Amino acid sequence: MSTIELPLTRESIVAAHKLIKPHIHTTPVLTNTTLSNLASIPQSPEALKGTPWEGQEPARPKIRLFFKAENFQKIGAFKVRGAFHAVLRLVEEKGIEQVRRKGVVTHSSGNHAQALALAARTLSIPAYIVMPSISTPSKIAGTRAQGAIMHFSGSTAAEREAVVADVIKDTGATLIPPYDHPHIMLGQGTMALEFSAEVEDLLAEKPELSVHYKSSVEGTKGPSGGSLDALIAPCGGGGMLSGNAIYFHSSATRVFGAEPEFEGADDARRGVDAGERITSVKTLTIADGLRTPLGPHTWKTISDKEYVAGLYAVTEQQIKDALRLVLERMKCFVEPSAVVGLATVLYNEEFRKMVEREAGEEGWDIGLIFSGGNTTIEAIVKMFGDVSESKAQRENGVVSFDGRKVAENVAG
Amino acid sequence: MSTIELPLTRESIVAAHKLIKPHIHTTPVLTNTTLSNLASIPQSPEALKGTPWEGQEPARPKIRLFFKAENFQKIGAFKVRGAFHAVLRLVEEKGIEQVRRKGVVTHSSGNHAQALALAARTLSIPAYIVMPSISTPSKIAGTRAQGAIMHFSGSTAAEREAVVADVIKDTGATLIPPYDHPHIMLGQGTMALEFSAEVEDLLAEKPELSVHYKSSVEGTKGPSGGSLDALIAPCGGGGMLSGNAIYFHSSATRVFGAEPEFEGADDARRGVDAGERITSVKTLTIADGLRTPLGPHTWKTISDKEYVAGLYAVTEQQIKDALRLVLERMKCFVEPSAVVGLATVLYNEEFRKMVEREAGEEGWDIGLIFSGGNTTIEAIVKMFGDVSESKAQRENGVVSFDGRKVAENVAG
Repeated sequence: MSTIELPLTRESIVAAHKLIKPHIHTTPVLTNTTLSNLASIPQSPEALKGTPWEGQEPARPKIRLFFKAENFQKIGAFKVRGAFHAVLRLVEEKGIEQVRRKGVVTHSSGNHAQALALAARTLSIPAYIVMPSISTPSKIAGTRAQGAIMHFSGSTAAEREAVVADVIKDTGATLIPPYDHPHIMLGQGTMALEFSAEVEDLLAEKPELSVHYKSSVEGTKGPSGGSLDALIAPCGGGGMLSGNAIYFHSSATRVFGAEPEFEGADDARRGVDAGERITSVKTLTIADGLRTPLGPHTWKTISDKEYVAGLYAVTEQQIKDALRLVLERMKCFVEPSAVVGLATVLYNEEFRKMVEREAGEEGWDIGLIFSGGNTTIEAIVKMFGDVSESKAQRENGVVSFDGRKVAENVAG
Repeated sequence: MSTIELPLTRESIVAAHKLIKPHIHTTPVLTNTTLSNLASIPQSPEALKGTPWEGQEPARPKIRLFFKAENFQKIGAFKVRGAFHAVLRLVEEKGIEQVRRKGVVTHSSGNHAQALALAARTLSIPAYIVMPSISTPSKIAGTRAQGAIMHFSGSTAAEREAVVADVIKDTGATLIPPYDHPHIMLGQGTMALEFSAEVEDLLAEKPELSVHYKSSVEGTKGPSGGSLDALIAPCGGGGMLSGNAIYFHSSATRVFGAEPEFEGADDARRGVDAGERITSVKTLTIADGLRTPLGPHTWKTISDKEYVAGLYAVTEQQIKDALRLVLERMKCFVEPSAVVGLATVLYNEEFRKMVEREAGEEGWDIGLIFSGGNTTIEAIVKMFGDVSESKAQRENGVVSFDGRKVAENVAG
């Protein structure tokens, strides 16, 4: 990476956005009446059985949802923002000639590998990608197809890092890490800038989407000034969550993180609770983009209450239920990692109680980020393949989601 | 329906759009580099085996695709356009009081039933929906949830019509047919008006999307004046295809129709070839929105070469392949009926030869309509459930579509 690091401020994100804008899509912001309504219906008492809220009155938060559709981003995920930003800053510092001569390198078998490969190809820079040799062939070939030069390693962090070190020794390439670097965090934060501006534009055009906007035009401006009251970002390595938190720092928009809880994937939440970063996670959650622990840089921002107001975890079943809603109701194809924020809003009673308490009668405009859409029909078939089980949810034309019922096929 | 019928002209569609605009979404127009590139790659010789083009040089058309995403429309399908238009014209003629007293009625178990129920509910008009009693419970309950009053019939057309006649006798309700009426056709045609304007706006902003736009700003304006050269609409009962054809009549945009060929679902194509309307079709094509034959009104427009320049049919496998591309590459959740146009562009060699011949070096900007997104995860699982079979297409990280290969997970 560049040796000069930009400060972690909103101004740095504004500058990052200017730099990467020609290379990325400005993804749309979507709304959906059915999902906003569903979020504002209390969970059923049955859904709370076996949880700490069993027997309590279910929360009655008022929620209006706004979705930033980064699944429509280039390479199908937000990762291009950080990758382009890191590479362009490197070019700024070292000059394009030197970067073209030496190249960039990373270890990743996911969206970051493809993002870096695309950024490098766009700028005619060689990209060396280190993947475990056991990676699915599709990911290897997909990244190679973006023009990357592939290297293979064993599966442990030590083996991976040894291969990266070899590549660097041989080529002089600069390491572009997947999330734990200020330039990556600031790059991902550019989505917050777009999101905020797009929601303001949307409310100006359709004031009926939020009571806040109405009250602001009537002169009794709501807390958020017409933009988001809260935003929930999925949290894996923490690049996206920290970027959003930096952008909205000291604003009216509170930023929260969401994680899968399966096999300890909620390392950020547990680390913040314990006051110490968890450095290793081994989980096979279906939200495969969120299996990574925080790094030192992302931890610093995310563990600071001034930046991230809270972290919430959701179950595998809640992720599947939220995924079904996004596919069938919003007609958006997203990967499981993309819906942990929606699952939190719909099913995490702790979050819902908090919104009821904090937001009161006016409710909150909540922003959610569809982080990516890189899944396959095969993965969907595998996840939902037991048709007999899932059919039980669709009784008599009504789909049940954790106790709340919605009629079939009625899109928002 | 109203007894006063509007003329089938572009002016009537402009007027229809003004009337229904407050009640519908202006759905977005999408583009996708991967799919446009794929459409411009010749099919492999293997893909043409067993077809009339076996042994011939595969066509090399130059194609740029634009997608009108009616899957994001209210109720998840374009049908609300026609339903709102027909009901609002009825109100214009009879007065809201009388229509509220007597109501509207239709027979449909699909998107039209929900569309009419929504239009009626919006205007506080009772809607009577006749469905075969063997309809899936989900469709019955979904339509009831829109506030419709349900009636049940046997499965034959005669039994259905008898129940409709009974409802009309009892209530004085007016029949709003699913497609075969000028007001429905004109209502569906409003998507053409939006589509054309949106493509112009898009090209003004991103001229690199089409060579036509470039040549037009350089003073050597292409044939379409910056908008679409061609549009392909799915064809079932023909309401949408005829509406689009009426809008683009005598313009630079040629309109084509696409149908499934399975079990004779390509009744429009066969009828036009034979010079006579086919009045009955019995097919279980996966494109379940396209199982209906044309009616007398839609036939009149669709069989006229001045309106519809050609009709093409695609196989079930081609529909599945196109569906996979739209889900995985475009990240859009659509129903099988929505992709017959894309399947035509990618796989119908007759169409592709025609484009190569007609469009030459400049190629064509082709508009496709994602008619709806009302399918379920269960339907996807059923369609693609044999993972072993579909996995064969994903060898070594490369997905094959009828001979053309694309790397995995590389979104446009």
